[in-house]
Amino acid sequence: MNITFIGAGNVAWHLAPALENAGHQVNEVVSRQLSHARQLVSLLYDARPRTNLNLTDSPSELFVLTVPDDALPDVCSRLVLPENAIVVHTSGSRSLDDLNGWMQVYSDVPARTGVFYPLQTFSRSQNPLDFEGIPICIEAADPDTEAKLVTLGQEISSIVYLVNSAERRILHLSAVFACNFTNHLLAVAQNLTEAHDLEFDLLKPLIRETFRKALLAPNPADVQTGPARRGDQKTINTHLQMLADQPRLMEIYEVMTESIRGKRGR
Amino acid sequence: MNITFIGAGNVAWHLAPALENAGHQVNEVVSRQLSHARQLVSLLYDARPRTNLNLTDSPSELFVLTVPDDALPDVCSRLVLPENAIVVHTSGSRSLDDLNGWMQVYSDVPARTGVFYPLQTFSRSQNPLDFEGIPICIEAADPDTEAKLVTLGQEISSIVYLVNSAERRILHLSAVFACNFTNHLLAVAQNLTEAHDLEFDLLKPLIRETFRKALLAPNPADVQTGPARRGDQKTINTHLQMLADQPRLMEIYEVMTESIRGKRGR
Repeated sequence: MNITFIGAGNVAWHLAPALENAGHQVNEVVSRQLSHARQLVSLLYDARPRTNLNLTDSPSELFVLTVPDDALPDVCSRLVLPENAIVVHTSGSRSLDDLNGWMQVYSDVPARTGVFYPLQTFSRSQNPLDFEGIPICIEAADPDTEAKLVTLGQEISSIVYLVNSAERRILHLSAVFACNFTNHLLAVAQNLTEAHDLEFDLLKPLIRETFRKALLAPNPADVQTGPARRGDQKTINTHLQMLADQPRLMEIYEVMTESIRGKRGR
Repeated sequence: MNITFIGAGNVAWHLAPALENAGHQVNEVVSRQLSHARQLVSLLYDARPRTNLNLTDSPSELFVLTVPDDALPDVCSRLVLPENAIVVHTSGSRSLDDLNGWMQVYSDVPARTGVFYPLQTFSRSQNPLDFEGIPICIEAADPDTEAKLVTLGQEISSIVYLVNSAERRILHLSAVFACNFTNHLLAVAQNLTEAHDLEFDLLKPLIRETFRKALLAPNPADVQTGPARRGDQKTINTHLQMLADQPRLMEIYEVMTESIRGKRGR
């Protein structure tokens, strides 16, 4: 397949090389900033950096939107595609209907639309990732596009699922709890330890083991430990006293503790 | 050293074999339930299961309390030790002063007290753990006991720190955020996905990568991602709507989001 990436950020940084390694050709990388497009192009075989969203002259069949979610409506409004183009976004939080709306309202030429959502966190600072174990969630507005996207997904990953927009939204929300919020709790723990001149590294073996266990157990809830789980009110009270001058952390402590104790259900 | 374990739970299950592997002799395992003591004894070379807390006839020099934190005052009140015994607890949340208080008030014979706190999570269902990479936090009421406990710690782990009770309390509180609360967030994510017939396994590659990154980064805060970090209010609003019938989860979502955005500081 001939492919154009629109957006040269974290997702494109990993997905474009992975598609090339699977035998596809990335022709173009479009970015508002030519320097960003050039950086990604330097990882690719024979792609051209561009800034213009009028892509009627493009040789590509597939256009992959990897701009930030918030930028999607504006980018789609200025996107002009060749006939019969397939256009997909890679977002967990935006629906296929959203994309259809943006493309119909703003574009001159109707496109075949879909979603190609790799359920992973990407950073430009890493070496390109192996997608083999990364779930790819596919959705498309028509069966032909769906089949093409599934085939493409299977060429880079062994975990390809058809996931509709409502399901993808749930996965994304779940990932916010399981990843974004957990990451923040690690940051909180680092702040607490370092504020008392203790090394955060001391906690790392415990953190690693906690996650290893949680992901091995049939249910993370089965391996829940700690004062809230035990109903150890003495320790909970001590902890709340220790957090008296940090109301934000006290609030996190309280709602997490109540949720673990199931006082008010889920 | 000749050692007696008081408590046959998760910590003893791993620590007793580790101390034996380092060349020490576990003489006795005391548990309220003889069957529990017997189970642990079956892992050890030549230990004797007991239920009685009058241990004046014990050949041991070191008595390791591994009962639940809440049970410590009661157990200490009934504990009778031989002269010159060293008694340590293994708790993150109870101070050395607590132990001194329980031992002075209740025991007939004064003991040399200390804390031997392995900063790890233990389950009986696992094979005995290698303590090599597990931080051991030591505290003692006198220098001679401290030296003995440090030596003992260094025989099983390469990470032995002197940590006073106030510092240990901070480590324990930090671990509640970094481990207990994060584990609960994984359970929340599982509930959310499975309530919509989605496999929790789909999220596991993302969770693994999130933690790998967070623990490799100089600061987990540096690799924070997600709608709260980006200030993506549209996604945040959608997520809150999706949680409308789960007030507990909505509350977690709100306090975590506000904490990430730093609206009200830490």
